[in-house]
Amino acid sequence: MRDRFSFVLFRPKEAGNVGAAARALKNMGFTELRLVAPCSRTSSEAVAMAVHGRDLLERAQVFDTLGAAVADCALSVGTTCRKGPYRSHAKLARAAASELISESASNRIAIVFGPEDTGLTNDELKLCHRLLTIPGAPDYRSLNLAQAVMIVAYELMLAATVGERAGEAPQYAPATEVDAMLNRMAEALVAIGFLPEDNPDHVMFAIRAMLGRSGVTERELDVLSGIASQIRWFAEGGREVLDAKRLAGKKLR
Amino acid sequence: MRDRFSFVLFRPKEAGNVGAAARALKNMGFTELRLVAPCSRTSSEAVAMAVHGRDLLERAQVFDTLGAAVADCALSVGTTCRKGPYRSHAKLARAAASELISESASNRIAIVFGPEDTGLTNDELKLCHRLLTIPGAPDYRSLNLAQAVMIVAYELMLAATVGERAGEAPQYAPATEVDAMLNRMAEALVAIGFLPEDNPDHVMFAIRAMLGRSGVTERELDVLSGIASQIRWFAEGGREVLDAKRLAGKKLR
Repeated sequence: MRDRFSFVLFRPKEAGNVGAAARALKNMGFTELRLVAPCSRTSSEAVAMAVHGRDLLERAQVFDTLGAAVADCALSVGTTCRKGPYRSHAKLARAAASELISESASNRIAIVFGPEDTGLTNDELKLCHRLLTIPGAPDYRSLNLAQAVMIVAYELMLAATVGERAGEAPQYAPATEVDAMLNRMAEALVAIGFLPEDNPDHVMFAIRAMLGRSGVTERELDVLSGIASQIRWFAEGGREVLDAKRLAGKKLR
Repeated sequence: MRDRFSFVLFRPKEAGNVGAAARALKNMGFTELRLVAPCSRTSSEAVAMAVHGRDLLERAQVFDTLGAAVADCALSVGTTCRKGPYRSHAKLARAAASELISESASNRIAIVFGPEDTGLTNDELKLCHRLLTIPGAPDYRSLNLAQAVMIVAYELMLAATVGERAGEAPQYAPATEVDAMLNRMAEALVAIGFLPEDNPDHVMFAIRAMLGRSGVTERELDVLSGIASQIRWFAEGGREVLDAKRLAGKKLR
């Protein structure tokens, strides 16, 4: 089950942290580290900190973009210690862990960690369906990167080993397909004047947050894609066809 | 309650780990680090890893022996990842944490961590009343020192705040309001010919299922209601207004 999780470090700055994260994952029985534009994973510092987690470090896939790193994952979970309008729905690590473990039975899951100094920005959060946060002292919430990886891995490991889990989680559509649908939906909503052409993201964040919490099955994706297409079709002149059919008393669709 | 705990590092070898441990304690709201014959806590590496936990590092008391470091503590808890005749009674961190929290109400408690390479030997264990271990992958149980400090501090912090943690889940809009929105959405989707007038329920079931899993906040309800209204407005002739606005180069909405 633990090989259904990919731990993604997005633009880590300190090689030591990359190595320490590899060790933490190995300690907790995880197998997959992914790196987006990392500093230098083969540096002596990374290797020294990885110790017996060196195999994870060496096998780690490197990607140019976060989108590419999470493309094959049905669910991407961003980690954050900051508050903010797009971050209020972050779940505490422990509560998130048991959910994620049951969902991992039928879905590949990415856990995404931002750079040491800034964490994940709203741009990266767009690619994350859910948010996870590690509780702590209110006056100093920012954990070292490898420490954050350890806490999440530890919680997942414990959640995975807690007896049997009730019920099967539904299987979700791949993230890239949901993303493509959301882009078509945004275009459709621009076409009918609901979203401003210059900044559709603000409102789309609310929709993303909702779908992130729910997950989207293939069937639901078909429905949402159908709605986006139909709005678009209607906006681009389909209305005359529709009116003509209605006048002719024909059954619609 | 958290100031009733002293975290004792026994002969740590790496200054970076001492700094990282100070940061981890600060992250989890603890205040007291104690060091037994440490390497060099004021080294630049320790300070760099401590970041905003630097005050804990600077205030850390230094002792010559473990006996002196735990002398004022009613309870000393050793940490170990090894098996052995004197270690079989080690408790898992999570189970130990809730016990220790209740005991800390009336006792000062030391949590003792051994050196990076050997951990605590049986000599040090003689000074420890209990043992605590962090579960993990059977083939690689040895955590980085600062990571071990983090896990124990995290478990104690959570055990201390159980009960204070309710209310983190988002607050959802009342079911009747979500239902009313879904009815308006169904009407709008009928109006653009996406749903058949005689049986819109079939497709709407998929949307209900999704929103049922996610829950819908007031803000998200506003967005969905707005989309339904806009589709309806557009279907009923708003398109001419929109086209006129676009032709006039006006900003939409």
